[in-house]
Amino acid sequence: MSVGLETSLKLLPVKGVRLASVAAGVRYTDRPDVVVIELADQTRAAGVFTRNRFCAAPVIVSKEHLAANSIRACLVNAGNANAGTGEQGIADARACCMALAQRLGCETDNVLPFSTGIIGERLPVKRITESLDECIGNLKEDAWDAAATGIMTTDTVPKGISRQCVIQGKTITITGIVKGSGMIRPNMATLLSYIATDARVSQPVLQELLNEMVSCSFNRTTVDGDTSTNDSCLLFATGASGIDEIKDIKEHGYVILRQAMLDVFLWLAQAIVRDAEGVTKFITINVQDSTSTAEALEVAFTVAHSPLVKTALFASDPNWGRILAAVGRAPVPDLDVGKVSILLGDVCVLRDGALAAGYQEQQGQAVMDEDEITITITLGRGTEQATVWTSDLSYDYIKINAEYRS
Amino acid sequence: MSVGLETSLKLLPVKGVRLASVAAGVRYTDRPDVVVIELADQTRAAGVFTRNRFCAAPVIVSKEHLAANSIRACLVNAGNANAGTGEQGIADARACCMALAQRLGCETDNVLPFSTGIIGERLPVKRITESLDECIGNLKEDAWDAAATGIMTTDTVPKGISRQCVIQGKTITITGIVKGSGMIRPNMATLLSYIATDARVSQPVLQELLNEMVSCSFNRTTVDGDTSTNDSCLLFATGASGIDEIKDIKEHGYVILRQAMLDVFLWLAQAIVRDAEGVTKFITINVQDSTSTAEALEVAFTVAHSPLVKTALFASDPNWGRILAAVGRAPVPDLDVGKVSILLGDVCVLRDGALAAGYQEQQGQAVMDEDEITITITLGRGTEQATVWTSDLSYDYIKINAEYRS
Repeated sequence: MSVGLETSLKLLPVKGVRLASVAAGVRYTDRPDVVVIELADQTRAAGVFTRNRFCAAPVIVSKEHLAANSIRACLVNAGNANAGTGEQGIADARACCMALAQRLGCETDNVLPFSTGIIGERLPVKRITESLDECIGNLKEDAWDAAATGIMTTDTVPKGISRQCVIQGKTITITGIVKGSGMIRPNMATLLSYIATDARVSQPVLQELLNEMVSCSFNRTTVDGDTSTNDSCLLFATGASGIDEIKDIKEHGYVILRQAMLDVFLWLAQAIVRDAEGVTKFITINVQDSTSTAEALEVAFTVAHSPLVKTALFASDPNWGRILAAVGRAPVPDLDVGKVSILLGDVCVLRDGALAAGYQEQQGQAVMDEDEITITITLGRGTEQATVWTSDLSYDYIKINAEYRS
Repeated sequence: MSVGLETSLKLLPVKGVRLASVAAGVRYTDRPDVVVIELADQTRAAGVFTRNRFCAAPVIVSKEHLAANSIRACLVNAGNANAGTGEQGIADARACCMALAQRLGCETDNVLPFSTGIIGERLPVKRITESLDECIGNLKEDAWDAAATGIMTTDTVPKGISRQCVIQGKTITITGIVKGSGMIRPNMATLLSYIATDARVSQPVLQELLNEMVSCSFNRTTVDGDTSTNDSCLLFATGASGIDEIKDIKEHGYVILRQAMLDVFLWLAQAIVRDAEGVTKFITINVQDSTSTAEALEVAFTVAHSPLVKTALFASDPNWGRILAAVGRAPVPDLDVGKVSILLGDVCVLRDGALAAGYQEQQGQAVMDEDEITITITLGRGTEQATVWTSDLSYDYIKINAEYRS
């Protein structure tokens, strides 16, 4: 299940982008698991990738190819992460890129490879390359929904969103898709996300935009604290809308584009949490009155990762003592617990380090019975704040992760 | 259930220590939940306590009383942690100490209070103090088993051990008990543990011994990464054996005592993991060839806390890619993944950063099918090492923690 997500998407095409998916049998049967995203000539590309030191072979190859700054296609497979596979994995990723490049009439380093799924097994290169002719034959602009479905692993619904804005009098479209449900504590980007716009943006500005977007969206979510080996987030600007190139973040067009992008990235990041493995609750954690954003994030993530907080949320149990215990072990030097307050929704349960006067358990219970719950923690030591989104920890999380390979 | 623990204890008495338990109805009904430990005059006491900044009221009071250096009794209740209760909680803890002190004919600050259980509810002082006459009437030397049972919360079995050694020609006894099953990532000591010996040891040496013991036992275990507000570990030396006081860690008697204590502390710390909430597997994580013990511990704890590693262990799934992903996100600067190897039991699954040649999944499966599993990670960057003990993550962990208050 998921919390607050539609099951159908109806994503808008982006001029200059064609997509297709195919059932190649990488791991799953009878479902699409290979996706090709073809990009118009002159498309600018920016990427951010996992900081996991065991980054997967396709991440290594994608970073290399991205540096060449002339990207014409993405080749994505679900079901096998091609991680922990050493030099062989890198050769396998390159072989897939070469096979697609030959068919599209471009160079191998114009193709970015991506993989997601089981770690530590060799990529079935032949099954992928043999599926490419059929896949390329199906390429079309109006296939974002199919692509969002083709990159899924344990996701229960395809996830994507479109937004439009007007720049230089022209309608600009942004469409983004994302997959990811477990092994989610992005430390750069979430598992796989592709966002494209027909705006024309210089590469340095596009990269700066992507860095900011990831920092305030994907990097503020967590499901289980495990950072993937394959996290990749790609932003493409085809320029096919015909607007003049945005070359500076001070331009009016940039400000408009940035706001629309922020909508898209926040939606995508939160969608991952809403479709987290075993999720039954969507949780927003606000930490306020901290000395820095980093400090607020430390506290928010400590609470978000606590298995005891997460199981209480699953149980709809207003057991706020577990939140207090998590705040107390967060790495905040010299925290004065006498200044800490905790709210469940609008209900204050802890004020200045002690039981809030007049608090009745049924007030907390009413908040916890909702599907979407906000926890606010005020530290009373500064003026900064941060928000993190997370999920609860349920029987189904265990089921999904104990039975993933069986 | 638990892994590899006996359900009956038969602990040895320690001269100078008398114990009793009583069903006071603090939270549970029809089971002992208040324990008194009476200590002979001149007993030396040492303690280590949680580093959670929201430390519970009894922890604050115990630290104060311990400084007075004349401890005659411990008063322990299960079912209510008296944490997050502010000034009222401190007054409640003191009231309990005073009630016991009056009955034992000592001062309030000769009594150490301890509480474990639900956080954020007021301690039922009256129920505890009204139970004390019955409890004191039952005090006897041979009641360690009853005390180990009386301090339990979600523990499934009472946990304790005795060891003997010979110092200055006299038989010295050490008996220790421990409770703790969830909210376990001791950052000082685990939930509640009381260890007593009839050796005579000076207070400074006793404290130094305790610090070392906790550091290499309790502080190397984790169940769920959540540090309790109430962690307390107390070591008492009654001196009733009649040996000369051990005043220096270079004395031969100290060396003998230390070795026997190490057995006791390692057993107690591992017993907590063996009785962890929902445990089905006892896991040992060895990290080798690191540049420092601290670095090895960082890697070991990152793996030990990974929900994906823990659910794979629960499923007996040799999905070592999850171990690799956890190692890759551990905070080790400049980790060269090309030098990292991973073994499940004696089976090498990853050698020098890539799939180990010749590895067959059934080899890993055979290791994972066992109740006790050792994971060895070699970093290839130094000569230091560390070992951490942990449990798996099962449906029953969710059940226990989602239903704890219901």
